[in-house]
Amino acid sequence: MDQEFSSRVLENAVTELSRLPGIGRKTALRLALHLLRREEKDVTALGEALISLRKDICYCRQCHNISEDELCAICASPARDHRTLCVVENVKDVMSIENTGQYNGVYHVLGGLISPMDGIGPDSLEIASLVKRVAAGDIDEVILALSSTMEGDTTNFYIYRRLGDYDIRLTQLARGMSVGNEIEYTDEVTLGRSLLNRVPFGDSFKQ
Amino acid sequence: MDQEFSSRVLENAVTELSRLPGIGRKTALRLALHLLRREEKDVTALGEALISLRKDICYCRQCHNISEDELCAICASPARDHRTLCVVENVKDVMSIENTGQYNGVYHVLGGLISPMDGIGPDSLEIASLVKRVAAGDIDEVILALSSTMEGDTTNFYIYRRLGDYDIRLTQLARGMSVGNEIEYTDEVTLGRSLLNRVPFGDSFKQ
Repeated sequence: MDQEFSSRVLENAVTELSRLPGIGRKTALRLALHLLRREEKDVTALGEALISLRKDICYCRQCHNISEDELCAICASPARDHRTLCVVENVKDVMSIENTGQYNGVYHVLGGLISPMDGIGPDSLEIASLVKRVAAGDIDEVILALSSTMEGDTTNFYIYRRLGDYDIRLTQLARGMSVGNEIEYTDEVTLGRSLLNRVPFGDSFKQ
Repeated sequence: MDQEFSSRVLENAVTELSRLPGIGRKTALRLALHLLRREEKDVTALGEALISLRKDICYCRQCHNISEDELCAICASPARDHRTLCVVENVKDVMSIENTGQYNGVYHVLGGLISPMDGIGPDSLEIASLVKRVAAGDIDEVILALSSTMEGDTTNFYIYRRLGDYDIRLTQLARGMSVGNEIEYTDEVTLGRSLLNRVPFGDSFKQ
């Protein structure tokens, strides 16, 4: 026999599971044996949820966030401020910002950051479509909400250069001490930024 | 909205994935976002493999190993020695022993070990069916291949008591130094057993 397990069905399930990131054959076998002990309807629910995930989710044609329709729930909502645009790296960052409950504008998902080392240039990302949205003239403010890394800064600067000619407010996330952090344990660069970008006392209580 | 994500389909997939052992909501989300980037046919293959796993695999009515038919491939094989029976804790142990390539008999899967602390008594395990197989008189040797733990020893002793009246050879796995281990790093109990159970020099070259 050319297979490791006596059962072809088990072999198949283990092979498919071990294609997931961070799951090797040992973990895949453990998961498969666990599933064998579960109710049939539970396992069917899992399998169908995964198939539906890939089949029923597409990307919003406007902001490139994941969506079940051509336009995502955020882009389609009349309750959101469509003149404020938040630029993020990926779908997870949309979730993180939504979870703060502090943002009511719309998004633009780049699908990555410029990283010449990894062969990711501006053309691999949704930057042209961002420029197009801004050029359409319906945007007042673009908020750059990218990671504070070299790739994030490079992408910020590239977008800044591309959007420089348009009459919009271009802002970026504040850098500073984490809430709940002690000064003693804050690194110097962050502490320096916190000082430079200091705000009037009481501003954060206002809203 | 009562859900964490904007998409109900994503929410559903994450919830189902996070029911797997060792996978929390964060890992489940990472896996789901990974699947979204994969080809649709790959994700469908994974989903269908899991559904088929639970639906098409049953347990061998004779040895209780996993099987796609009423009788597993090992029990059904005329090439195996059906007079030698190896008693193991679970399906994984059958795989481990099969992978050694050193065993040509058949198996009996108990489905666990006696563990009063966890409420597992002899009646929760496939011990009655083991006694029945032996009582049928077609078995020459029963090999106890259980873990070298308190639960394993308890189960070994219980089976020894139950099978004591039958005319069979009852053996257990040899305890001793691991192959490749140094004497210096072998614990005293194991080293003591290795001494007690010493074998004529050259025996291991024979086969």
